[in-house]
Amino acid sequence: MEHSAPFAETSRRGFLRTVGVAGGAGVLYSAMGAMGLAPVPTADAASYRAPQESDFALSGRGGKKVVILGGGIAGLATAYELGKAGYDCRILEAKNRPGGRNWTARGGTTETDLDGNTQQARFSDGQYMNCGPGRLPQSHVTLDYCRELGVELQAFVNQNADAYIYHQNSAALAGKPMRWRTAKADVYGYVSELLAKATDQGALDAALTKDDKDRLISFLQSFGAIKGKADGFAYAGTDRRGYTVEPGAADNAGVVLGPVPSLSDVLASGVGQRFSFELGYDQAMMMFQPVGGMDAIPRALEKAIRRGTIQYEAAATAVANVPGGVEVTWRDKHGREHVERADFCVVATPPHIAARLRHNLGDPVTNALKTPTPLAVGKIGLEYKRRWWELEDRMYGGVVPTDTDLANMWFPSYGYQGRRGTVIGYYNTGANAEAYGKLPHAQRAERAVAQGVKIFGDRYRSELAASFSVAWHRTPFLEGGWVGWRDQNGPEYKLLNQPQGNVYFAGDWLSHVIAWQHGAFTSARKVVTDIHTRVMAA
Amino acid sequence: MEHSAPFAETSRRGFLRTVGVAGGAGVLYSAMGAMGLAPVPTADAASYRAPQESDFALSGRGGKKVVILGGGIAGLATAYELGKAGYDCRILEAKNRPGGRNWTARGGTTETDLDGNTQQARFSDGQYMNCGPGRLPQSHVTLDYCRELGVELQAFVNQNADAYIYHQNSAALAGKPMRWRTAKADVYGYVSELLAKATDQGALDAALTKDDKDRLISFLQSFGAIKGKADGFAYAGTDRRGYTVEPGAADNAGVVLGPVPSLSDVLASGVGQRFSFELGYDQAMMMFQPVGGMDAIPRALEKAIRRGTIQYEAAATAVANVPGGVEVTWRDKHGREHVERADFCVVATPPHIAARLRHNLGDPVTNALKTPTPLAVGKIGLEYKRRWWELEDRMYGGVVPTDTDLANMWFPSYGYQGRRGTVIGYYNTGANAEAYGKLPHAQRAERAVAQGVKIFGDRYRSELAASFSVAWHRTPFLEGGWVGWRDQNGPEYKLLNQPQGNVYFAGDWLSHVIAWQHGAFTSARKVVTDIHTRVMAA
Repeated sequence: MEHSAPFAETSRRGFLRTVGVAGGAGVLYSAMGAMGLAPVPTADAASYRAPQESDFALSGRGGKKVVILGGGIAGLATAYELGKAGYDCRILEAKNRPGGRNWTARGGTTETDLDGNTQQARFSDGQYMNCGPGRLPQSHVTLDYCRELGVELQAFVNQNADAYIYHQNSAALAGKPMRWRTAKADVYGYVSELLAKATDQGALDAALTKDDKDRLISFLQSFGAIKGKADGFAYAGTDRRGYTVEPGAADNAGVVLGPVPSLSDVLASGVGQRFSFELGYDQAMMMFQPVGGMDAIPRALEKAIRRGTIQYEAAATAVANVPGGVEVTWRDKHGREHVERADFCVVATPPHIAARLRHNLGDPVTNALKTPTPLAVGKIGLEYKRRWWELEDRMYGGVVPTDTDLANMWFPSYGYQGRRGTVIGYYNTGANAEAYGKLPHAQRAERAVAQGVKIFGDRYRSELAASFSVAWHRTPFLEGGWVGWRDQNGPEYKLLNQPQGNVYFAGDWLSHVIAWQHGAFTSARKVVTDIHTRVMAA
Repeated sequence: MEHSAPFAETSRRGFLRTVGVAGGAGVLYSAMGAMGLAPVPTADAASYRAPQESDFALSGRGGKKVVILGGGIAGLATAYELGKAGYDCRILEAKNRPGGRNWTARGGTTETDLDGNTQQARFSDGQYMNCGPGRLPQSHVTLDYCRELGVELQAFVNQNADAYIYHQNSAALAGKPMRWRTAKADVYGYVSELLAKATDQGALDAALTKDDKDRLISFLQSFGAIKGKADGFAYAGTDRRGYTVEPGAADNAGVVLGPVPSLSDVLASGVGQRFSFELGYDQAMMMFQPVGGMDAIPRALEKAIRRGTIQYEAAATAVANVPGGVEVTWRDKHGREHVERADFCVVATPPHIAARLRHNLGDPVTNALKTPTPLAVGKIGLEYKRRWWELEDRMYGGVVPTDTDLANMWFPSYGYQGRRGTVIGYYNTGANAEAYGKLPHAQRAERAVAQGVKIFGDRYRSELAASFSVAWHRTPFLEGGWVGWRDQNGPEYKLLNQPQGNVYFAGDWLSHVIAWQHGAFTSARKVVTDIHTRVMAA
């Protein structure tokens, strides 16, 4: 339901739906819980208790050795939390940096993709692009980690009345971008007019009392800025649409943007189909981002865990349960093989990467790891010499949804009124991300800029200073933006949420909050709790 | 229309309506312009050209001397802009600081009101309260001044899905606060259900084609998260309402907030009447504030104008046109009278303050200055030892509208996750502001806290560290939050927008954007343009 709209954002939740998770999983699961069907008691974020060194006092027990595959958020959080009780953790991270998909590109950032193409970002000082996660909702435990780790936050502009909606395929809009404020004024205006008329004419008398009707019409007059009954509740425009001349001093009362398109044109434009995005549980404002780049989070985790815990450029190749623990084989950057023994192993890589490990956990584990489907996801960062969107459009940050292959564009939520700024020129998924991902970077940029020029004019090309792009599905050791499960109540999902001997799995892909760091953090907390409980019970 | 709702915010625009400016002044004036009735050509912000020293080159002319009464935004901007061409400006400011109503209270801020009560703010380091303007829309010229003056901006949280609406008089809500996200989910859900039903049943066939109907129903399904035709388009809740258990790892799919109240209860609660606030032209997100306090703007203006321009604690008592210019009489803090001669005078005080000047401008000027009605406006800042709204409510900033005498509460848009935070405990107008304004500060705080406890519980009292309040109508030299005109097309408004001999008037009260700094800036620009044009033509 939430995503049945033709113009709905190609969102992460949308993708989950397309691979089979029906909308409203929360409703489903809470209903299951109420029926006593949920297999394990719910552990919500608030009830988490970190392991502590004092847990071992007088017990004769102590922290065990844990090797963690993958230094993304799940792997880092596992080491961080276990480290609080003195566990001896070792993270094997295949890349040369922490964070996994939490990755911020700056001037100098270099990356070689699976096709062998190398890009080096040439962004100016202070300019950056969050290649992976870019926004944090207030409810996510990620914010608690930011507090605990001292990562400073600022607002992320996920909603801006002055940002645009661009539907090139809408004859009604004639291919012209429309500001969100204008779209809302017109849609709410006409919807209010129609419902007020129907209500007043008695069409809903079966559902509404006299008081209900009065209150509903009063609401619609306020919500839609429509006229009164004498004027047929007509919507005839409102200054909520915006002004072509800003009101000011003396006799300048401003000129309201007009004319108001017809009801048919407004409906045909499809702009209203964008509105549910801003109502989504995890997308509604306020949203936040770390000051200076999202990678402030993995950098802070790296700093908070014991020095030397992370072995970079260490690609795990095998994991096995062995008597008394686990054995992990990994290859360093020179191709030399190493073997690491520990009490436990936490596999915190994406599932399709983990599926390639040699192991002795059995075929059902391999099959389960291959079950979720990785999604192609792409982003491009475009640094401009001038913040023309602020100077000329008076748009300070914001998301611009389009019906082009760019999908969504993001305008920056930092460095307001500075000299330069970096726009996310596309944030797309699926076929659009595949199409861009196939191209070398220069061609991606060329294509993205050509599309953007249609919306923003020549300045979108002429003011460009630098660019950098990521195709997550073509990025080594990650190979996807995120994954979707056909069935998160199926045996494969359940299997991987259970320890396989002394091997555990963790990641956002083992949560109901896939594609968000919250999923990775809560999965790590679950595995940490499981391991610590086991150690304490031993 | 925009403000006819019973629960509509006691907004500034609302006040304008109550004193006689019909909603949609923009529409009115632009229509007038189209009919050729607007008396003076529109000068919008974009077309403003600052005076320059080079304007005088080869002309034999030079900058004149201008005395400015009042160092608020209009007075400062007048001196700043005229200073660009070398005018010799002198500002007489009655208070001991610049900014007028743009005033930020910090630890140590001291103020004595018209009743002789003195308050000293005891806020902690880094904590502050914007006593006057607190938010800046993207369209306002104020942002251009921030850019020009190097005043750094950050987001102001004027909309937050996780903030509350509190209607104590609503039986339907049982006096419990409801989050904006929940209110929107339910109102949009039921509105969508009703309109989809009426549309499907043919009640709107006179207004809608078959295509219109299909598109409208498709929109409503997305907008309201309602069921399909087979289920009668029923609204039965959605995860947009929020969760009581946040989704997380493994089997924790979360528990969606329920139960969903009935349609009648949702309508009776009046929560929907709050929504239009966020759609307002000058209130829709994104909005901004200067980092560190709104007074960064007057401080930057003060720094940008020539040193010694501002004479503080200088209360003007008389202004007169005299041969060759103007003569201004003012009193210093020791009660000594001074006389200042200049070519021009710009009166940039509130009109009701200016009305008390002795002058020789004629009775119509006095009468005109007495025409606009000052509004009582109050704010209280409450510093808390702990940011419990973030820690416990997971509400990072936001406006909480209430139907109590507090009117609106603001949660801070700065210092996220810091140790302490300062809440605006009330931002009220009219009778509510009068009621609080009559009390000494300690009683204001006591009353405001008692009201807040009803919404937020005992922590609202027990965690309080410091407080400071302002009653603008009881504040010397200002005596009001802002003013309202019965008729901005009337002779009084017109008269004061014309020079009276060599005396000019400036301020937000001489604009169509009253109660915003934009009004003061654009009024200053108009007067600066008028004076400079006159000087250049002489």
